Amino acid sequence: MSTALFYHAGCPVCVEAEQKVADAIDQSRYTVEVVHLGENKDQISSAEKAGVKSVPALVLDGIPFHINFGADLNALK
Amino acid sequence: MSTALFYHAGCPVCVEAEQKVADAIDQSRYTVEVVHLGENKDQISSAEKAGVKSVPALVLDGIPFHINFGADLNALK
Repeated sequence: MSTALFYHAGCPVCVEAEQKVADAIDQSRYTVEVVHLGENKDQISSAEKAGVKSVPALVLDGIPFHINFGADLNALK
Repeated sequence: MSTALFYHAGCPVCVEAEQKVADAIDQSRYTVEVVHLGENKDQISSAEKAGVKSVPALVLDGIPFHINFGADLNALK
């Protein structure tokens, strides 16, 4: 099973549209986990280790993809 | 059936990683179409109408999501 991590920071305008991407992932092949970094600051370092520079971001099997441009991770610390 | 359009411009370094996103889409729910805008310039206007500003971009049911930042559409015309 592959893993898809979707990192976001709860932007109220964007969450619905952003989760459309997470929702479109094939859950028969990927375990999808949605992480709100604003509420789970302890996971910021894991996100950074995966190469995440901004949110929203989707990490597929460890490869980071930044979607649009949202909040810089430094703004969440 | 929903539609997922993945627009790119053939960046050799990025195509493999970019298509990882297109490949992760659930094909039991989405018809996935990958469009190389460098080779299909007639589709640039459709991409623009969908709100695509840069490639690579993923359009899910008409909603555009820009992935990282690649080539501005104006550079492909």
